[in-house]
Formats: sequence, C-alpha cells, structure tokens
Amino acid sequence: MQSRSRLTLVVFALAAAASTGAAQTDPLPSWNEGAAKQAILKFVADVTGEGAAAVPPAERIAVFDNDGTLWSEQPLYFQLAFALDQVKLMAPKHPEWKTQEPFKTLLAGDVKAALAQGEKAMLSIVAATHSGMTTEEFASSVETWATTAKHPKTGRLYTEMTYQPMLELLGHLRRKGFKTFIVSGGGVEFMRAWVEKAYGIPPEQVVGSSGAVKFELRPSGPVLLKEAKVDFVDDGPGKPVGINRFIGRRPILAFGNSDGDHQMLQWTAAGSGRRFIGLVHHTDAVREWAYDRQSHIGKLDKALDEALQRSWTVVDMKADWKRVYPYEK
Amino acid sequence: MQSRSRLTLVVFALAAAASTGAAQTDPLPSWNEGAAKQAILKFVADVTGEGAAAVPPAERIAVFDNDGTLWSEQPLYFQLAFALDQVKLMAPKHPEWKTQEPFKTLLAGDVKAALAQGEKAMLSIVAATHSGMTTEEFASSVETWATTAKHPKTGRLYTEMTYQPMLELLGHLRRKGFKTFIVSGGGVEFMRAWVEKAYGIPPEQVVGSSGAVKFELRPSGPVLLKEAKVDFVDDGPGKPVGINRFIGRRPILAFGNSDGDHQMLQWTAAGSGRRFIGLVHHTDAVREWAYDRQSHIGKLDKALDEALQRSWTVVDMKADWKRVYPYEK
Repeated sequence: MQSRSRLTLVVFALAAAASTGAAQTDPLPSWNEGAAKQAILKFVADVTGEGAAAVPPAERIAVFDNDGTLWSEQPLYFQLAFALDQVKLMAPKHPEWKTQEPFKTLLAGDVKAALAQGEKAMLSIVAATHSGMTTEEFASSVETWATTAKHPKTGRLYTEMTYQPMLELLGHLRRKGFKTFIVSGGGVEFMRAWVEKAYGIPPEQVVGSSGAVKFELRPSGPVLLKEAKVDFVDDGPGKPVGINRFIGRRPILAFGNSDGDHQMLQWTAAGSGRRFIGLVHHTDAVREWAYDRQSHIGKLDKALDEALQRSWTVVDMKADWKRVYPYEK
Repeated sequence: MQSRSRLTLVVFALAAAASTGAAQTDPLPSWNEGAAKQAILKFVADVTGEGAAAVPPAERIAVFDNDGTLWSEQPLYFQLAFALDQVKLMAPKHPEWKTQEPFKTLLAGDVKAALAQGEKAMLSIVAATHSGMTTEEFASSVETWATTAKHPKTGRLYTEMTYQPMLELLGHLRRKGFKTFIVSGGGVEFMRAWVEKAYGIPPEQVVGSSGAVKFELRPSGPVLLKEAKVDFVDDGPGKPVGINRFIGRRPILAFGNSDGDHQMLQWTAAGSGRRFIGLVHHTDAVREWAYDRQSHIGKLDKALDEALQRSWTVVDMKADWKRVYPYEK
C-alpha cells in the first residue's frame, strides 16, 4: 500500500499542477475581452463539458472559410496573385502569349486592365497556370511561391498574412477535441500545399474547389494530370454540398466572412443542439482592410443581415482583435 | 529531490508494465502465422519505428477498398442488395412500377432476370432508390436496412459480414498512429451510414462514388437533395483520383481485392520510401466464397498478375485467416 499511496500522491500533484496551469492561460490572448471572445469560450466550454450541451468528440466538427476568414484576401484573392506570378514565370515557354489576351496585357504589366477583361479572361489565366502538369508539379510550384512571393502592401510572405486570433481559435478547438476543417472556394490543391504549416490543418481536412484530374500510367510510373476543366466549385450553395461530400457530417461550428459562406452558415446553424456561427467582419482599414456590402472581393451583405437578425457572432476585427497578423508585436 | 526520484520510479514502473503487456498481446490473433501476417507486422514496425524507414504520423495514411476487402460482396454487392430491398419497400408508392421494367420483373421476385436486363436497368434501380430524397432521409433508410436486413446465405446482418482479420488490422494500424480510410467504388453516403460502427472509420475518412447533391432553402430550413445524376465514380483509375481529391496525400499502405483497386495499388506503390500493398484473395469456398479471374463481381486478374510479379502481399483467405467473420468462434 505504501507505493500505491505514493503513486496516488504523485498523480494528484500532477493533476493539480495541470489544472492550475490551465486556469492561468488564456487560450485566446489576441482577442480583446468582449462579446465575441466570450461567446466562443462559452460555446466551446459548453459542448466539451459534462452538461446537457455536451457533444461527443467524434461530432466536434468545425469548418472555416479560408480567404478573409483565416488569411487576408485583398487587394486580390491570394490564389489569383499566385496565378499572375505563374504567368510571368511561365511566359518564356509561351511565346504565343505575346499576342494573346489576357496574357498580352498582363505581361505588359497592367494587371488591372487584364482582369477587367472579365470572367473568361480570368478563367484562361487560371486554366493556364493550374492545368497541364502533374499534381506533384503543381504542388511544388505552389510551395515555391508560398515560401518566396511577397504581398505588395505588407512586403510579407502571403502565408504570413494569416490571422493570429484565428490561429489561436483553431488551436483552442483542437485542444478541446475538435477536428478543424477548411471549407473554401479556393482550389483544394493550392491550399493543401501550405495550409498544414500555416494552420496545422492536414490535407485530408481541406475542402475546396477542384479541377478534373486524370490518372495516367507512364513508362516511368503512374501520374495524376491536372486538366483544364472545373470539376467542383466549393462556394455559396456548393459549400454545404462540399461538406456533405468530403466530411459527411454536419459541423457544429462554422466561421466565414462573406456571402459565399452564407449557405454553409445556414446549413451548420440548422443542425440540432448547440451551434456556433461566426463571421469575421473586416472593419480595420489601418491594420488590414475595411469592406463589406459593396466589395467585389469578400462581399458581405446578405449573410451579415442574417447574422444580425439571428444573433450569430459577428467579429469586429478592429474592436475584437488585439493583433491581426502573427508578426505584429 | 526525494519526490522527484519517487516520480521517476513510478514512471519507470508504469512504462515497464506497459511494454510487458504489449509484448504478450498478438495484434492480429485471427491471422495464421505465415508470410502475409509477417509482412504486415514487419512493415508496421518498420515505418513506426526509429530506423531509416520511419514515417511521421501525419503521413501514415492507409487506404482500404470496402467490398471484398473489408466485408463480403457475394452473391451481389451488398449495396445492390440494399437497392433491391428498397424497391420492395418503396413499391406501394410507385404503382407505375407494376408495368415498368426492370421494376416489374423485380417485384415479381425474379432478381436474376431483372439484373440480366443490363446496365441501364441497374442504373434505374440505383437512381430510384438513391435519389429524390434528402441526404438525411437516405442515411436513415440505410441505417434501418443495416440493422435489419439479413444476408440470404448466412442469415446474418450484412454488417456482421465484415472480416475479423481486417478489423484487427485496422485497429493495429490506428494504435500505431495510422489514419485509416475507405476508398471504395461503393456509394459514399451508403457507406457512411454504417462504417463508423462496423470499422471505427469516421465519415470524413470515407471516399466513395457519389451522386449530385443540391442545396435547397425550404421554409422549414435548408436541406441537401440527392439528385439522379452520377457525380463521381470512385473505381479503377477513379480511385487514385479520389485519393487525390479527398485525402490529398499519397497513402503508404493500400489494400484491395480486385482489378477495380489496381490503379490505387499502383499509385500507392509508386511513392518513395517503404510501401505496403496487399490483396485479399478469395480462396475459401467453404467459409466465404472462392473467385478471382473469371468472376463478374470482384474480378481479380490483372492486379493479381502485377501482385505476383512485384511481390505484393497476396492474402490467401483460406490459408491465412483463422477466422473470417467476427461471429465465428
């Protein structure tokens, strides 16, 4: 019994130390005290506690939009910035682009005019830079870009422009037994090349738009070829469809920032039991950008109306966030 | 220092107890001693050990075909048995089926003749039973079937006809830090309704064929409607495409049983570093079924040739498995 009681003592001492430690640590230090932070902490405590709102770990599914929710999206979606950088890089191998729009205008340096040519022009830029190679060649081009390309305003790597408060939220949820997923209109293969490092979210927990891919058995071995054909658009009503297809379980927490997330938020909210629905509202023109109802990128209008009406949590970036990017002190 | 050394003692005692326990337990008790069992155990020990073949936990992705690999598939794919049962159940609401093929023949009790009407007949049976309802209504119909319908030969629930040796393998892999996935030609929503209970594989780790699904905002709330349109066929060359789309990472272990798994096995084998490629060979006409090169269901021909040529692990069900189903003693 002597050794048994020593073990008991040690275990109690360790448990006490652990719980003291937890009480002293704020899981969301970059969030100002306020309604948003309080709502998040209360929801997580309730569904992971022992009370009536408890949710078993297997059902703790949390989904996050990416552009504008986990990292910035101005002045252009970052994946579009990648595509434009790739056009420049690929140009020497495409002499025909010198006379072919939108490439001609783009290579002459007028990004705005090239994009103003409309959706067809945009799609041909995406097709040229996102197909005609193997999945591994594409992933490698994204990795190179993610570790070298700099944002025109901040001069930082695009992958440094993730939101520190959201990184803390992802970590807090995972420590509480949640599985965190990205559900984004962005390309799934584009995101998978860097999100694991940036957010700690593994490739198999990324849902996104995708192009068609074809299996080919070459003499050197099998490859997957990216084709110039859109296969799935994970935006708007496509988001609940993507959640159903990839995850197969309704989330209990969803976070977005634009009308492209509206149906995902509605779908999540409509489940039974406690739900958390959050919107990042871009209100900080100094530290980030301020935009909502009138913006071409990340337009937030109808989803904001429903959020206000249904008391979803609207995060006011300027008021609620102590810090925006991880590199800020 | 006194309490420190006591803690050290306790920790060592616990560690010793744990390692003794592990050494005494065979992780694959339903596998006979032989080359297949040895190859599996050695591979898992090598990639989860400290040596040159070590693979970090995040990359320990294992993929399994379902029909004929994790559960039986004779005399009909079990999902087809579900569809046929549903036709009977739905018939009272479809008086037109009395004169419409293949339903007329099917409802007259001649399953063989109905299926002999060819692929179009088969597709209309699948469409009638797998679309025109919400995803939740469909899941609920599968759950009811999975807990009530009995197999014509064994008289057991279909969901009891999983392979005990493969259940042990799934468990062993998960205890060693693997993430286990199903990658099957079967319908993803059909499988998700029962595989978590049967295999311990959560919905988000199931890759399968799928039909189109549509988001609809009804006055009562949002729903996802299953449409009569095939969206993705996760079979043959579709399997590596599905792995790329849903998992986004190349597996290091793949298990199949038919030519429909061939490209998945090739894709997995072509990765760098150690790989494990396995085939379940149906050789046991007494306890299960015996079939391979000439079978209409689960045809195993080209993949078997490549397996023999490249020394993949071919599991001889009759020789390698002590037990087939969990309910056998």
